Amino acid sequence: MTVTSFGDRLAAEFAASRHLCAGIDPHAPLLAEWGLPDDASGAEWMGRTIVAAAAGRAACVKPQVAFFERFGAAGFLALERVLADAREARLLVIADVKRGDIGSSFDAYAAAWLTPDTPLEVDAMTVAAYQGFGTLTGAFTRLQAHGKGIFVLAATSNPEAAEVQLARRQDGRTVAAAMVDDAIGWNERAEAEAAVGSVGVVLGATLDLSRFGIDTTTPRSGPALPVLAPGFGHQGARIEDAGVIFGGIGRALLANESRGILRGGADGLVERITVRAEAIASAVARHS
Amino acid sequence: MTVTSFGDRLAAEFAASRHLCAGIDPHAPLLAEWGLPDDASGAEWMGRTIVAAAAGRAACVKPQVAFFERFGAAGFLALERVLADAREARLLVIADVKRGDIGSSFDAYAAAWLTPDTPLEVDAMTVAAYQGFGTLTGAFTRLQAHGKGIFVLAATSNPEAAEVQLARRQDGRTVAAAMVDDAIGWNERAEAEAAVGSVGVVLGATLDLSRFGIDTTTPRSGPALPVLAPGFGHQGARIEDAGVIFGGIGRALLANESRGILRGGADGLVERITVRAEAIASAVARHS
Repeated sequence: MTVTSFGDRLAAEFAASRHLCAGIDPHAPLLAEWGLPDDASGAEWMGRTIVAAAAGRAACVKPQVAFFERFGAAGFLALERVLADAREARLLVIADVKRGDIGSSFDAYAAAWLTPDTPLEVDAMTVAAYQGFGTLTGAFTRLQAHGKGIFVLAATSNPEAAEVQLARRQDGRTVAAAMVDDAIGWNERAEAEAAVGSVGVVLGATLDLSRFGIDTTTPRSGPALPVLAPGFGHQGARIEDAGVIFGGIGRALLANESRGILRGGADGLVERITVRAEAIASAVARHS
Repeated sequence: MTVTSFGDRLAAEFAASRHLCAGIDPHAPLLAEWGLPDDASGAEWMGRTIVAAAAGRAACVKPQVAFFERFGAAGFLALERVLADAREARLLVIADVKRGDIGSSFDAYAAAWLTPDTPLEVDAMTVAAYQGFGTLTGAFTRLQAHGKGIFVLAATSNPEAAEVQLARRQDGRTVAAAMVDDAIGWNERAEAEAAVGSVGVVLGATLDLSRFGIDTTTPRSGPALPVLAPGFGHQGARIEDAGVIFGGIGRALLANESRGILRGGADGLVERITVRAEAIASAVARHS
């Protein structure tokens, strides 16, 4: 059986003009706003409601796993049910777990999230490489075998992040720019013929990427780099500016929105997702 | 009710000459070696066996959560039972989760692991601050309210780590050295009178810390910095050299050992823990 790569599956979403990644963020204030209990059952209900509303409208959903993990095993059981719904709806899922470790420990995280027919199976996970991009390579055979993806934290918009992400490596690059380069490099080597790669990055849309030495101006050949970008909408970046913000590395953009979509409860959720999905699609189309 | 700080509880372990942190690493090869199934029940049995053997002999145990997470909700249920045993045995637990995120997401991770009377409650967790040390501060009120601790990844021994951890911040310090400084600074400000602080760091025992600009020579007043150090035993660092390796920042040392203790199965586990605990205690005593 031929495995379709994660990048190819992303490319199919983009071809259908879907670029919205809808957050699933069952934190206590939002559960209260939805009239749901602050427990695993509330998180499950919110998650399954968002999946049903996003299917066919958003490119993917992104559960923030911390908000499930706070309920322990019961929270993970709730998440498993949300993920089962998403698989049935053929909706891509990016688990926002920001896992990172070395050797067999990182491989175990990849096994947890990126193995077919396991309860936590998703399409891609977010990872944080404080221990170096090289720690991720153990999971890369798994990406190729199972058609899975990862999104590596590169430059994030919280102000405290600059101290690490702007730090200069011995080769002169910033930590953030090197994460971007390493992701592009992996895609070019492993998936040279692909339109979209399977290794992406997380880049905050409210940032000036030139400050990190991230090159957004040079046109690039090779697979497009998937960019998972929080910061649009509520946090202040305008989707109309995506072409300016990401330039040459923004061809495979997933615009993550959570608060703007989820605020207001289940009533009107489909409409809010539809409005944002269309706004993002038309802004992206104008730049392509 | 007065809450005893995590640092004070560590100090009590050190006063009883306990400095060993025993790993709980139910990965597939080790489960096979123990004659256990590679599933949640095998991980639970291994974890509970290690807790029983370590109680009263080691300062703490450190479950590597990735090896439980790979079994999904069932793995977390297994972990909850291991943690319940440890609480009953009054054995300190450091959850090796290397979590990291921003704002309410990081706070949710802290809630998951550091909240009294929840199923995943432990005494301390490991964290990775790719998004900056400042992202952790939201959890610090929780440390003080509940007597909990964290261990921040600073300098780790895997070769790929140097690219991030040796990078120079704009203030001239390496990323790793700044993590150490920030942990010391928090303890000095928040727990000025304590013998041992509640915020610690992870430092690989096989490293030359001077390469990172981490100052091990200046004598320090103020609370001792908890140092969780993998690398002794199987990985090649000698516990007899701990005084040289960590110098002035090694007064509150937890020597983590996993492979050397766990290899060989449940038979002889108590003896192997006892031998290593005594070797570590006498080496530490010679330096004090």
